Amino acid sequence: MTRVIVLNGGSSSGKSGIARCLQAVLPDPWLTVGVDVLVEAMPAAMRASDAGIEFAADGGVSVGPRFRTLQFAWMIGVAAMARAGARVIIDDVFLGGASSQRDWHEALDGLDVLWVGVRCEPEVAVGRELARGDRIGGMAASQAELVHEGVRYDVEVDTTRTEALECARTIAARVGPGSAVRQERNADSPEPTS
Amino acid sequence: MTRVIVLNGGSSSGKSGIARCLQAVLPDPWLTVGVDVLVEAMPAAMRASDAGIEFAADGGVSVGPRFRTLQFAWMIGVAAMARAGARVIIDDVFLGGASSQRDWHEALDGLDVLWVGVRCEPEVAVGRELARGDRIGGMAASQAELVHEGVRYDVEVDTTRTEALECARTIAARVGPGSAVRQERNADSPEPTS
Amino acid sequence: MTRVIVLNGGSSSGKSGIARCLQAVLPDPWLTVGVDVLVEAMPAAMRASDAGIEFAADGGVSVGPRFRTLQFAWMIGVAAMARAGARVIIDDVFLGGASSQRDWHEALDGLDVLWVGVRCEPEVAVGRELARGDRIGGMAASQAELVHEGVRYDVEVDTTRTEALECARTIAARVGPGSAVRQERNADSPEPTS
Amino acid sequence: MTRVIVLNGGSSSGKSGIARCLQAVLPDPWLTVGVDVLVEAMPAAMRASDAGIEFAADGGVSVGPRFRTLQFAWMIGVAAMARAGARVIIDDVFLGGASSQRDWHEALDGLDVLWVGVRCEPEVAVGRELARGDRIGGMAASQAELVHEGVRYDVEVDTTRTEALECARTIAARVGPGSAVRQERNADSPEPTS
Repeated sequence: MTRVIVLNGGSSSGKSGIARCLQAVLPDPWLTVGVDVLVEAMPAAMRASDAGIEFAADGGVSVGPRFRTLQFAWMIGVAAMARAGARVIIDDVFLGGASSQRDWHEALDGLDVLWVGVRCEPEVAVGRELARGDRIGGMAASQAELVHEGVRYDVEVDTTRTEALECARTIAARVGPGSAVRQERNADSPEPTS
Repeated sequence: MTRVIVLNGGSSSGKSGIARCLQAVLPDPWLTVGVDVLVEAMPAAMRASDAGIEFAADGGVSVGPRFRTLQFAWMIGVAAMARAGARVIIDDVFLGGASSQRDWHEALDGLDVLWVGVRCEPEVAVGRELARGDRIGGMAASQAELVHEGVRYDVEVDTTRTEALECARTIAARVGPGSAVRQERNADSPEPTS
Repeated sequence: MTRVIVLNGGSSSGKSGIARCLQAVLPDPWLTVGVDVLVEAMPAAMRASDAGIEFAADGGVSVGPRFRTLQFAWMIGVAAMARAGARVIIDDVFLGGASSQRDWHEALDGLDVLWVGVRCEPEVAVGRELARGDRIGGMAASQAELVHEGVRYDVEVDTTRTEALECARTIAARVGPGSAVRQERNADSPEPTS
Repeated sequence: MTRVIVLNGGSSSGKSGIARCLQAVLPDPWLTVGVDVLVEAMPAAMRASDAGIEFAADGGVSVGPRFRTLQFAWMIGVAAMARAGARVIIDDVFLGGASSQRDWHEALDGLDVLWVGVRCEPEVAVGRELARGDRIGGMAASQAELVHEGVRYDVEVDTTRTEALECARTIAARVGPGSAVRQERNADSPEPTS
């Protein structure tokens, strides 16, 4: 039974919208956690330092050792939430491509995970970044391909011409069978250790 | 050495401001996690249902079984973040008073925790709630005393006449000795298992 | 020469994204004003009263006499901004259809206005409302057709299958000829009285 | 009868909180408009250019000719809203001190204006800027004294040791006599031309 859905895609590819639609269409309550919220949870000083995270004027993002230390602890914590009974949607940007996936693999060890690639043609993502108006220009372009390099998925969706809700339905159809049924039976009682 | 700071106080008592000041004055990078962000992470449908969380028109807040299930898993996850090496500030509202503290006690078992009570005279909190303009009226009044019932603290601060930064300095002075020193020595290397 | 662009469309039809893209593609600096910001500018108490604005649980929106008084004064003020030399994009929802357009017509008297209809198929708008997660469910559905009843446009765009940036380019192509040229010549000097 | 309240003070001095409290305590509905919202209404590209507005890393703010052109038109528009019957609270930062006041004086010509100075000791404003976490560090310090230079007020409030709600009550007591009474009599009917 699927306990974790990992959405990976570049900035402005539409992951957050898909996550909200997934929460609406899936029968169980799912928590959404994401790297954007993690960055917000860090000290303001981490958002502009070599040791933390840097957003370059051209949209490039680089992270330093202190960022990675907190990020790693956060990943362990997210996995622990899932093991403690929460269904979790992870909204992430694999800046390290396959190596980011390995890190999550390790953290999520033993959990039933659905890996989802969220693609969007770069020129469309760039336009949506402009339309949102709250992102540093250039992130969409620089991340569009990068984050998928060497990553393996159970499902891929493409938001270029498909709405978030339809993408969410495609993903929901791949969420482990029986989840709704199990939910009815065991609502709010401790989860079996699977 | 202190790994976790728990800030407990009613709505509009000033916890989030203190948390941001703590992140600025403490020498190590600390993550801030809070119940507000947890509520945002839940499905929208959970925010208005018997099984989820309900915000009454008079400012009362009640949570149902599904909310508690996710909240419990979240607490376990936050504790796991701290055990994996993150220093964590928890910004919470103990709607259950002493019983909320017991739940955190259990989740944070084995970690060095600093328990902080954030007080604010109800009439002042009510005025600040009005000035913020983004909260349901009445939460400040109904939570001001309630959340402290039977709770034991290492430090208490009162924001009625003391600025957030000064409160943060008072709290920071109680954060486990040696943390700054240790930080200089071990920056970005794995934490000793204490 | 076009001084005002009026974007009319239902909730979640994509007006704000188009407005931001217009600001990026048009050579002059344009101000965007919108009914959402107007509602934010009103007293909190106006957001839930018979005399102010009411958002029903089913997505219906109704406005009372006090709301209309402020709204009317706001329209006069927006027109005055345009007459004083600002190029203005108005992001509105014509809850009254043709009658809302008449009100704007009157306020904007003597100004060169480009009227733009922003359409989106209701089922798509409903999905986007869900994906945004910050709107009351049902507004998209109830407003999708209503706001266009009896309204006459210079241009119409449909965001159902067209990106905001492309819609913005279509609109920009209709903005009065010579605006860019004039801008180069007269940059930051007083506008001719047309 | 007072139609316009101008609140002038440095960043993080507490103007917005006072404005929201004023909206709550004054018997009539007042619109709040502010320079923060004006900046948001401008094209994103204006927020980082010589011709627009620049926020230096040290908290300094400078505005160029294109910014001033839009700002001037906005001031004319705000005055027109007040003349058309809206009661308006203006939340501004007089970067030019007395000269900013002269500009508003001219725009608001003929309207009954209450000029309010909002002061806060610089070190306290700096702490609150840190606690808010959403402002560029240094703005509070650099603006605290600057914005009041040569400006004349009808009322001054100091948020250093006085809550926003209490400041709002002090200001409300100076709002033109009879306003509440007049409001009851004329509610929602056209304003007399004074």
